[in-house]
Amino acid sequence: MLKNYYNNQILPELEGKEVIVAGWVHNIRDLGGKKFLILRDATGIGQVVVDKDSPAFKVANELTQESVVRIKGKVKADKRAPRGAEIHAEDIEILSLAKVPLPLDVSGKVKADIDTRLRERVLDLRRPEMTAVVKIQSVVLRTFRETLYNEGFVEIFTPKIIAAATEGGAQLFPVIYFGKEAFLAQSPQLYKELMAGVVEKVFEIGPAWRAEESDTPYHLAEFISMDVEMAFADYNDVMNLIEKLIYNITQRVSEDCKEELKLLNYTPPTVKLPIKRIPYKEAIEILQSKGLNIKFGDDIGTPELRILNEVIKEELYFITDWPTMARPFYTKVKDNEPEVSESFDLIYKWLEIASGSTRNHRREILEEALKKRGLRPESFEFFLRWFDYGMPPHAGFGMGFARLMVMLTGIQNVKEIVLFPRDKKRLTP
Amino acid sequence: MLKNYYNNQILPELEGKEVIVAGWVHNIRDLGGKKFLILRDATGIGQVVVDKDSPAFKVANELTQESVVRIKGKVKADKRAPRGAEIHAEDIEILSLAKVPLPLDVSGKVKADIDTRLRERVLDLRRPEMTAVVKIQSVVLRTFRETLYNEGFVEIFTPKIIAAATEGGAQLFPVIYFGKEAFLAQSPQLYKELMAGVVEKVFEIGPAWRAEESDTPYHLAEFISMDVEMAFADYNDVMNLIEKLIYNITQRVSEDCKEELKLLNYTPPTVKLPIKRIPYKEAIEILQSKGLNIKFGDDIGTPELRILNEVIKEELYFITDWPTMARPFYTKVKDNEPEVSESFDLIYKWLEIASGSTRNHRREILEEALKKRGLRPESFEFFLRWFDYGMPPHAGFGMGFARLMVMLTGIQNVKEIVLFPRDKKRLTP
Repeated sequence: MLKNYYNNQILPELEGKEVIVAGWVHNIRDLGGKKFLILRDATGIGQVVVDKDSPAFKVANELTQESVVRIKGKVKADKRAPRGAEIHAEDIEILSLAKVPLPLDVSGKVKADIDTRLRERVLDLRRPEMTAVVKIQSVVLRTFRETLYNEGFVEIFTPKIIAAATEGGAQLFPVIYFGKEAFLAQSPQLYKELMAGVVEKVFEIGPAWRAEESDTPYHLAEFISMDVEMAFADYNDVMNLIEKLIYNITQRVSEDCKEELKLLNYTPPTVKLPIKRIPYKEAIEILQSKGLNIKFGDDIGTPELRILNEVIKEELYFITDWPTMARPFYTKVKDNEPEVSESFDLIYKWLEIASGSTRNHRREILEEALKKRGLRPESFEFFLRWFDYGMPPHAGFGMGFARLMVMLTGIQNVKEIVLFPRDKKRLTP
Repeated sequence: MLKNYYNNQILPELEGKEVIVAGWVHNIRDLGGKKFLILRDATGIGQVVVDKDSPAFKVANELTQESVVRIKGKVKADKRAPRGAEIHAEDIEILSLAKVPLPLDVSGKVKADIDTRLRERVLDLRRPEMTAVVKIQSVVLRTFRETLYNEGFVEIFTPKIIAAATEGGAQLFPVIYFGKEAFLAQSPQLYKELMAGVVEKVFEIGPAWRAEESDTPYHLAEFISMDVEMAFADYNDVMNLIEKLIYNITQRVSEDCKEELKLLNYTPPTVKLPIKRIPYKEAIEILQSKGLNIKFGDDIGTPELRILNEVIKEELYFITDWPTMARPFYTKVKDNEPEVSESFDLIYKWLEIASGSTRNHRREILEEALKKRGLRPESFEFFLRWFDYGMPPHAGFGMGFARLMVMLTGIQNVKEIVLFPRDKKRLTP
């Protein structure tokens, strides 16, 4: 390794010790004949002092912002330095000299618009706020999986190139597959259901695609879907599991990402369990009482959710028991109330974060549900045929990773969260 | 939940306790007026006894293999039962009655060929040997990630729909992206390099695609790639990291998957550290000494690796320092030996499991390397431009998840390992 210490390890206890650090030149200042070099690495900011009589002084003169350097020096305790210690440079090696001017200011003094930020994305991601988002994402993924492993779930990977649509044909990206037409999966839905019919409890975190024509802050053409499916369970079991996941994730982020949240100037919501469950019909009544012209069967979109959120005053809530025909064909209807389904959405303020349901596990009901939606059972035979050979009752959910990150970072546009977002106008970088 | 116990929890200690289990009818036998029902669930096999005078007896008569049932009964200790205890059924509910005959025998008495198995894949995956493979995969993924988290790595997701090829144009799947032509990523190579230029240590586990025309036991059109990239490191650091990963993974699988390995009748290799590192030139000399007509610059393919493996007698070894022109443009050449690169392959017996190198971090060298390979630097501008703005020295590797699983399960065809494999002739199930 070209370095033996990271910035966050340079502490007063190392007083007098020779260390090698490396990273990016975040800033340089001249002060009374000395140079103060702010060195950024994966762990944060560190301070390097270059004295006039040091052989490193001449090299320091050449440095530009974002150049990559390797520095040998001695640690000195100093209360004014970031962690109470700084490095007095003895040798600076320039590993990569950055061009001037930078197309985006990484030190954050000059603000850039979103289009510039996404074009100059590598520099944008180096801004400490964005690096914080990248690190929080990793903690969220880890906690999501750990919670599921502890509940006995098995991690799977399902195919992304598929022959037929999951929920009808809309918004699919065609792939030319050895001369034949195929599609990119919109969701691992049908495959995760089949796998619940094999090992009972499964999850997958992976990409999914929707050819979204509209440009909203909450939609992407390529997104990371967090998918869970469990056999011998219904939608209440699934909501109970989501509560554990959301609780563990917010706890872990709040505890392990204190510095990152400080950089973002944000506090994630405190999750109180149980999370409120509001039946769709009740939500409609609330909206009607607020003067909205809305009736059973209508969608509850973002404008309606904003109003609902004002009334119920919960940061997180489930809307349950959606109208049957508002949900995909695999959703189970309630036994004594066929116009309503065993389904839910998890809402953060007014943003849908997850969606789930009890699934149909009987072939004849699935066929009927397909026909009711104008879909041909024959097109779904690759899925339906397994229901002849022992599919258990099952339930599950899909959660949008970037939307979950909206809740955890306060960033209001998923394109800012995803490293290299893909939408109608963006295919690079 | 429809069940309150799993098969592996039915132990003699529960003697007399009423339990609810659920799962698949793996087998049914009549013995002396009693029925013995072998119930399979995610945790394994359990034994249920249905006495002639039990109200469940009539229902038991209707059962077919792979039907899904829910059983209430009392636990009785019995040394002849799988875990020393069995359930005496009081009530059997059929949740899903399976058709007769099954297109594939799940209990494993009748062997099926690979084409039948992949066509009847959901039933095939329910065979206890295959369920064992699914579970081992999950343990491998978890251990791979945990090892990297503990080393300070950050998990990332990079785009899968890309504008240009990573390593030249061959074997790409075209995607129709909002009317424009784009491609499915062959590898996250260039994006993970850029991210090492942001947060230093990154990894990604996700799908990648190659339009493989040939039908071999080790190639797939869609595969899971385990990718790692680290800044301020070279290929020796990367090989050291791979040693930790492989050691931890084989240890964890051997310890936590004892039952699964027994089902597979397989013992993974014992990893002795350090893993032997053989320079390519030395490998060529060994092959020449064995009478092969091979010279510097030639590939070392499977037939050659089989011979090499016989000589060096190591289950796992690195072949290092490959000819520069045998490696992609982003590979760094050795400082004093420009015809040789700082690169390696990790070989299990005669199968390449991982491939890595120190990368070039200077723009002018990357441009030259592209030209030498007949590629146009202009086509890689989306990647090259970031090298003007502070790219650190870095190194990394890519590992094929299914190939790693070959080493850990003894299964010799990656199509048997991947849940729903994709190749030239397979797009379903």
